[in-house]
Amino acid sequence: MVQNKVFMYKSVPDGWPVPGKDLTVEDIGFDEAAPPPKGGFTTKNLYATYDPSQRGRMRHETVKSYSPAMAVGKPVVSVHVLGKVLKSDTPKIKEGSTVLMMSHYTEEYSAVPESAVKSTQVIEPKPGVPLTAYLGLMGMTGMTAYGSLHEIGQPKRGDVILVSAAAGAVGQAVGQIARQEGLHVIGSVGDDKKLDFIINELGFSSGFNYKKENISDAVKRLAPDGIDIYYDNVGGELLDVALANMKDFGRIVACGTISTYNDGSNSTRYGVQNYSAVVRKRLRWQGFIVYDPTIIRWKKERDEKVAQWIADGSFKSVDYVTHGMDHAVEGFLGMLKGENLGKSILKVADSES
Amino acid sequence: MVQNKVFMYKSVPDGWPVPGKDLTVEDIGFDEAAPPPKGGFTTKNLYATYDPSQRGRMRHETVKSYSPAMAVGKPVVSVHVLGKVLKSDTPKIKEGSTVLMMSHYTEEYSAVPESAVKSTQVIEPKPGVPLTAYLGLMGMTGMTAYGSLHEIGQPKRGDVILVSAAAGAVGQAVGQIARQEGLHVIGSVGDDKKLDFIINELGFSSGFNYKKENISDAVKRLAPDGIDIYYDNVGGELLDVALANMKDFGRIVACGTISTYNDGSNSTRYGVQNYSAVVRKRLRWQGFIVYDPTIIRWKKERDEKVAQWIADGSFKSVDYVTHGMDHAVEGFLGMLKGENLGKSILKVADSES
Repeated sequence: MVQNKVFMYKSVPDGWPVPGKDLTVEDIGFDEAAPPPKGGFTTKNLYATYDPSQRGRMRHETVKSYSPAMAVGKPVVSVHVLGKVLKSDTPKIKEGSTVLMMSHYTEEYSAVPESAVKSTQVIEPKPGVPLTAYLGLMGMTGMTAYGSLHEIGQPKRGDVILVSAAAGAVGQAVGQIARQEGLHVIGSVGDDKKLDFIINELGFSSGFNYKKENISDAVKRLAPDGIDIYYDNVGGELLDVALANMKDFGRIVACGTISTYNDGSNSTRYGVQNYSAVVRKRLRWQGFIVYDPTIIRWKKERDEKVAQWIADGSFKSVDYVTHGMDHAVEGFLGMLKGENLGKSILKVADSES
Repeated sequence: MVQNKVFMYKSVPDGWPVPGKDLTVEDIGFDEAAPPPKGGFTTKNLYATYDPSQRGRMRHETVKSYSPAMAVGKPVVSVHVLGKVLKSDTPKIKEGSTVLMMSHYTEEYSAVPESAVKSTQVIEPKPGVPLTAYLGLMGMTGMTAYGSLHEIGQPKRGDVILVSAAAGAVGQAVGQIARQEGLHVIGSVGDDKKLDFIINELGFSSGFNYKKENISDAVKRLAPDGIDIYYDNVGGELLDVALANMKDFGRIVACGTISTYNDGSNSTRYGVQNYSAVVRKRLRWQGFIVYDPTIIRWKKERDEKVAQWIADGSFKSVDYVTHGMDHAVEGFLGMLKGENLGKSILKVADSES
């Protein structure tokens, strides 16, 4: 047996998850000598991703949503876990190959059953594209951004797009795609370091720090003629301001409402007041998840374009890496608090170790 | 000169329009002996329509919306005025014909300029279709209902649709179209008389009186498996409840928010709390106006189907008629208060007189 630390989900949080109570790190051990599961394989894992959607799955099973509630007493499910294959009992997955596992436990070692082989992707990195890009821009984050922006946002050269949580994983992908396609890109962020980052590193046209400036003033200042596309990762007050500033026939891509995720059961939720703009301005406001057929159908185009943009240097894949399983809980809370620049990744182990 | 009473717009209401102050009836006279305007025509008017959208146009000119603000000191603009042509100076409009004028002053006699000829429709009633149907189901109300239900609502046989303001002009048209097409139709109304009407006269599957029953309880009771289409004429709390009860991939047709129209400038507006359902359930929530190309392209199909449904008796065109210009203000306020069953019409004069 070797050490196998896992990021454990102990109880359903009411509001912010409490370290040590709702979330812990525990060593459950791993038997290196055991054979792989029949038809499956075993891995030593290198990276796991953090994603706001994980908080949504930490709920009571009775609350319906598009993805299942996580099981209390099991490791936290990550959207992506990237690992090296140790042993395999399936011809589809070769020993020594690098694999990307979807909706997988956050752990150092995995014994992957046959049933999970179909949701496992063997990675053959393209030249100039780093391995971690397959957790973000070349993974579900990039797919989310590319598919929804095109399917719902219907971007046209010259359109004005406002992106909330612009320094977050999806936000920076959306902003960079929009910039590449000739849109005027405005980002909303929660601190000055991020503001500097999206403008000077990612090439956004402009942006504002919603904690420092009145949101309505900022949007009117940066988009005096209104917004064609609002890419919404947050909900709340910014959504309300966006509604008030949309152009006729504007599109709202409803990707997330992170501002509401940690409203405890007793909190008062924010009420959106300007929803009558949907009628007056003939807006289209639409939600999605990345697995919807209308979104995933953009995959081939995404794979080609984004890989090329990364390889030719015009597109930055910025990661915020938490190092080591011992820091799994704090990395997760940092992602939820919006402290991280770019895609949040937990580095489970070095590829060499 | 003969008497020509008009429904006059005197000042911008703050909240509910005040009779005698914001809205009046005045005799401005009409010269029967005068020739028609060059390239235009004159009419003696028979009917004018009341529509919630009129309230939206009674606003300060600085407030942007899809239709222009009404001009203070001029007659109230009705969506439709139906008249008989007295004199004509254009070959397109024959003397003695019946015409439907769009966005036209509410008055007993009209001198219509050449510029308005293109928005004037000569009516040749189909067999079995009464003249007043051209103000409602065969006019813009029916076009609104038919076009938006199909374009945004995407109805499929067996779908569950919830219609708010179900006894109103658009609501009863939507409900009857949906019933004809095999949907399960639930209506929300504000009194028991209307509830009886939509179920027993219009053939809705079920309904509830939102003033008597908790809205959330009623929707869960009548649509235990959720709603595929919410046809929203009201906004506010019912919209919030609908959001909470939509099925995945549900559609919200945003037709109106009458619950907010008379919020005065000092009132607190209702805030919609359940908007995160747009993300979680991948909803499509979209506004429109009837003149949008995507809506008006359903006209030919509407003209044929609805005329046939009226003629064969399967479709009721229910009108609430206010008799005479002297009652123009009270008829308008009654429509805004939701007191009227069906399409609200002002009878300006008998066709014989």
